Amino acid sequence: MNESFANVPLQWVGPVALTGPEINVTTELPLATYETPLFASVNRGARVATASGGIKAVVIDERMSRSVLFEAPDAIIALQCLEKIRADFVNLGEVVKGTSRFAKLIDHHAQIAGNLLFIRFEFTTGDASGHNMVTQASEALMSHIIERCSELKYESLSGNFCSDKKATGVNGILGRGKYVIAELTIPEKLVRTYLKSTPEKIVQLNIRKNLIGTMLAGGLRSANAHYANMLLAFYLATGQDAANIIEGSQGITHAEVRDGDLWFSVTIPNLIVGSVGNGKGIPFVEDVLSKLGCREDREPGANARRLALICAASVLCGELSLMAALTNPGELMDAHRKLERS
Amino acid sequence: MNESFANVPLQWVGPVALTGPEINVTTELPLATYETPLFASVNRGARVATASGGIKAVVIDERMSRSVLFEAPDAIIALQCLEKIRADFVNLGEVVKGTSRFAKLIDHHAQIAGNLLFIRFEFTTGDASGHNMVTQASEALMSHIIERCSELKYESLSGNFCSDKKATGVNGILGRGKYVIAELTIPEKLVRTYLKSTPEKIVQLNIRKNLIGTMLAGGLRSANAHYANMLLAFYLATGQDAANIIEGSQGITHAEVRDGDLWFSVTIPNLIVGSVGNGKGIPFVEDVLSKLGCREDREPGANARRLALICAASVLCGELSLMAALTNPGELMDAHRKLERS
Amino acid sequence: MNESFANVPLQWVGPVALTGPEINVTTELPLATYETPLFASVNRGARVATASGGIKAVVIDERMSRSVLFEAPDAIIALQCLEKIRADFVNLGEVVKGTSRFAKLIDHHAQIAGNLLFIRFEFTTGDASGHNMVTQASEALMSHIIERCSELKYESLSGNFCSDKKATGVNGILGRGKYVIAELTIPEKLVRTYLKSTPEKIVQLNIRKNLIGTMLAGGLRSANAHYANMLLAFYLATGQDAANIIEGSQGITHAEVRDGDLWFSVTIPNLIVGSVGNGKGIPFVEDVLSKLGCREDREPGANARRLALICAASVLCGELSLMAALTNPGELMDAHRKLERS
Amino acid sequence: MNESFANVPLQWVGPVALTGPEINVTTELPLATYETPLFASVNRGARVATASGGIKAVVIDERMSRSVLFEAPDAIIALQCLEKIRADFVNLGEVVKGTSRFAKLIDHHAQIAGNLLFIRFEFTTGDASGHNMVTQASEALMSHIIERCSELKYESLSGNFCSDKKATGVNGILGRGKYVIAELTIPEKLVRTYLKSTPEKIVQLNIRKNLIGTMLAGGLRSANAHYANMLLAFYLATGQDAANIIEGSQGITHAEVRDGDLWFSVTIPNLIVGSVGNGKGIPFVEDVLSKLGCREDREPGANARRLALICAASVLCGELSLMAALTNPGELMDAHRKLERS
Repeated sequence: MNESFANVPLQWVGPVALTGPEINVTTELPLATYETPLFASVNRGARVATASGGIKAVVIDERMSRSVLFEAPDAIIALQCLEKIRADFVNLGEVVKGTSRFAKLIDHHAQIAGNLLFIRFEFTTGDASGHNMVTQASEALMSHIIERCSELKYESLSGNFCSDKKATGVNGILGRGKYVIAELTIPEKLVRTYLKSTPEKIVQLNIRKNLIGTMLAGGLRSANAHYANMLLAFYLATGQDAANIIEGSQGITHAEVRDGDLWFSVTIPNLIVGSVGNGKGIPFVEDVLSKLGCREDREPGANARRLALICAASVLCGELSLMAALTNPGELMDAHRKLERS
Repeated sequence: MNESFANVPLQWVGPVALTGPEINVTTELPLATYETPLFASVNRGARVATASGGIKAVVIDERMSRSVLFEAPDAIIALQCLEKIRADFVNLGEVVKGTSRFAKLIDHHAQIAGNLLFIRFEFTTGDASGHNMVTQASEALMSHIIERCSELKYESLSGNFCSDKKATGVNGILGRGKYVIAELTIPEKLVRTYLKSTPEKIVQLNIRKNLIGTMLAGGLRSANAHYANMLLAFYLATGQDAANIIEGSQGITHAEVRDGDLWFSVTIPNLIVGSVGNGKGIPFVEDVLSKLGCREDREPGANARRLALICAASVLCGELSLMAALTNPGELMDAHRKLERS
Repeated sequence: MNESFANVPLQWVGPVALTGPEINVTTELPLATYETPLFASVNRGARVATASGGIKAVVIDERMSRSVLFEAPDAIIALQCLEKIRADFVNLGEVVKGTSRFAKLIDHHAQIAGNLLFIRFEFTTGDASGHNMVTQASEALMSHIIERCSELKYESLSGNFCSDKKATGVNGILGRGKYVIAELTIPEKLVRTYLKSTPEKIVQLNIRKNLIGTMLAGGLRSANAHYANMLLAFYLATGQDAANIIEGSQGITHAEVRDGDLWFSVTIPNLIVGSVGNGKGIPFVEDVLSKLGCREDREPGANARRLALICAASVLCGELSLMAALTNPGELMDAHRKLERS
Repeated sequence: MNESFANVPLQWVGPVALTGPEINVTTELPLATYETPLFASVNRGARVATASGGIKAVVIDERMSRSVLFEAPDAIIALQCLEKIRADFVNLGEVVKGTSRFAKLIDHHAQIAGNLLFIRFEFTTGDASGHNMVTQASEALMSHIIERCSELKYESLSGNFCSDKKATGVNGILGRGKYVIAELTIPEKLVRTYLKSTPEKIVQLNIRKNLIGTMLAGGLRSANAHYANMLLAFYLATGQDAANIIEGSQGITHAEVRDGDLWFSVTIPNLIVGSVGNGKGIPFVEDVLSKLGCREDREPGANARRLALICAASVLCGELSLMAALTNPGELMDAHRKLERS
């Protein structure tokens, strides 16, 4: 039984040119999904991106979080304990160091609700996405804290203020995973030839569908057409914990007409990826990561950031392609019908 | 290239006994994920569930949606057109019938923002999850409407009020996918022996972590520990479009102590699954669906509902097991450490 | 003690011209608030609106809701009871008629979470905002239902799925209060002279601040600069329950450049106002409502809708004025400093 | 015209005993609202609170925010500028000092979306709620920054990431206004005699209605029955900008049965109040503030915190009273009917 696998179709599309402070590469993009029409869609985006001079991408921030939960007798004591914990922050950092070579405590945020004390610890975790590393670190932190604050009782190693694989506001606001932005400028002429659209139409659609439409749907920190599709496919191709597409899907597409051309960007504040960890030892994953140049001998974190930047480029290509298609009545269904027949 | 696959580890866990108005079966649960510690966790939940007399599950509602987007000159005209469209609703149903044997228009909801008219059409789609079916139907509806309302212009076949694979409020409130609830009662003694916990501890943790913790995180229609993990694994094992775990993850765990025993439930309002469609033709998927009894000759929709019920049971087993583990300081990390070493 | 009052400064600003399917008037706008700089701001908006040919406004929908909450033994029984209640919907309408001359049951929506059954009843309530009317009707409905569904137990006359005076998604999606849109077109030249801005600047600011900025803030169905200020002032001036500015504040500003001119709109899906009911018998309120023409002998509901349209016009004037001011670095603070000194 | 006022009925209810690290007082509570049944409801809560030994309340945090918005050429430059601004943070503090005796810059948080840079500056503002103070400080900060980062252009003095008077997630997570918790323990016997209920019933209702019900409604960081009503009434009675009840309403009621008694708490993370500033010079407001002991000669901020604590006590009394009433079928409407007839 253990030898059984779900075989998800995998393809490399592109290539796409990608530059930024931490990257300068032309690479194909690996995608694995049952929704195979996605391959052609991302491929179109990659082709027009490369023809336009390529994509620029940058990591704005990175961290992984875990929120522990204590019970206090009341709010006043919860606050007193929180103040004591804050005064002890340097020691907390030492506790974390003792749990892992790579985990480093960089910040925290707290909430008190009645007698409940939630502390969200934030770490860098090297090249791992870091779920297990921060759980292990938080376990040690809880022990350390409870020894020093006898009024606090253990309630949970995770208090959902983390927040893992859930549609919440906290991650985008406080950070979880890589915060990545990818952008490009496409000359008006190439918008017409490759995308059968115009800069004006794509910008207008983005405002009406992604910004206003999502808002009407009660969307939470989300304004895009389908980041989730590209994230899933890239995650499955690279051995990621694909349940994290939930946070990843909460991103914002922003586009403008600049001197008649199309400037187009994807902002993904919670892109949780790693180049080491669970799933990364499976042979095909090792191959994919190596091919992407994410198994090089770099400082801790650099391989994972590279992976995040390539992932963001994949998201941009797929988002651009679908947005263009939607400006053409009929194109979307035609494409689906053709691809599914073949 | 087309012959390449992402090989995601797949296991059958359980078995679990499952009953309800539409199901009566004892079945193993198929899960495929890179996060292999999940297998043991769901398995524990399945064992205690079966020892307790099994899970009851029911489909509350089912529908698939697509929201089209029109531009009107102003709000007054948008409203006039909407009223005209509503008066023509019977004919819209006929238009939909012409696009598919299985799609049936059952309801609609509209939003007007300034001059923009969003109409969310809601359909039943037989045994398919229905993404493509409702897109095709909506394309025909847009053509039909634009012919009759000359003031309306096409803006987008999808206006994000649908809302597909995004963290929003609309799907839970108006419905998208199967709305499924699974529940069970576990005698106090079995909570102790199988789960190393007590009914009181699990109920208290659910209030503090899933309800209050998620609320503090700015959660949107979400109060659970990790539905996303089970959904991903079940979706990959059964050929589903796993990007729909985003809506699926927005569910609510509710537990109570009843006569000293534990009553535990998972409510999943947006469980998007199909037993036919994209991904279902892959050989291992066909095997899995057959083994689950979801390829039988039933009325349209019955196989998909059966699949949804089994999926909900998987979610319940995994949720229960993690919640119990979190009531025990240290158990969570011990389990991870042991499983990852093996 | 009962003779004591909070004296909130009240001013009439404008006048503004206002037309639509249900209104055709030129009227001053009554505003009461401690934040007196608002008077000048709304006044500026009213002046440019009138100079531009006036505001058009329309009521898209109207209803008031109350969600009752029942406890069932389990989800399967909850669903059976819900189906029984739905089959009995005509009789529920009769029950409601027996509680009030004006309350009319028009729709309902339900949610089941585990063993909990929430039913959101939706009513028209004549010229009253309707809080008390729907509470009274819902009390009768609960009694009627419990008599017929012996498995259901009373849990609460309000289950927060209503949802009253809270930041939620349900009201905008299902409706609560008047759903009103107000819009106007301002010639480019008047944008320059009255508002010291340009159509392009105001449109760009709306995208960046109201749409993207609010999204980043984790906003929920909200994309505006300060609807709450105008709503509060109008509500206090007209005897409304001003705690309903919470739902009211969740609205969307949408603007476009059209042929070089500025088209500007406010969409307020949850504007809860009444021309009769609590607070309306206070002498100054009676005067204000009479002056606005909202105490005429019309069909039930028409006076309240007229009031909602005038309120929406106030919101538009204030929103437009602040948005224009923000496009000018320094203007905002200058205005505040000047007004507060005077 | 300037001499006109909206006369909102004002009453003092209570008294209530209130203690905590910063307060020790027995005081009546001032409330002004058109919804006069509220007076009796809060009064009942105050009576049972005092009979139970009083309320404890504490300020967890305090700050006021304004988010400025810059346009950058692209995301990479936006990040470079942000890093430069962060390195200059000490000087930003000096800039703020130059704008006000009371404003003090204490923290900041940033978001980049495509080419847009939002910086949320956070300040303490003495005894003022601080809206104008932080706007003035932010204006100076923008000038300072633009002089040093020539690539940045002014877009808006407020970018809605603040976020003022809107239903968002950011304020609860990052802080805005006073973060206050009030709590008390009511002996089981007094729950029965004063509130005609039991601790178990109130705790259960809180879980089902405030936590689960609000979650189903798509609530955002909100789990309470009606904070908004008490906030409005207290704000109008004390000269506050009552549009800030929107953030204020986003709070959490948490209750537990402890040794058979009722422990009940209200957590209000965004209580925006001041004892000086707009509205505070009106004679009746001066009287009210003096009577509450909020015009004493204390260190800056202490009067405003005292006011916040008393406000939170008012919220607790009203919340408790309504929750108890809802556990009794019929009591709510009876109370309304009686009070409105009188």
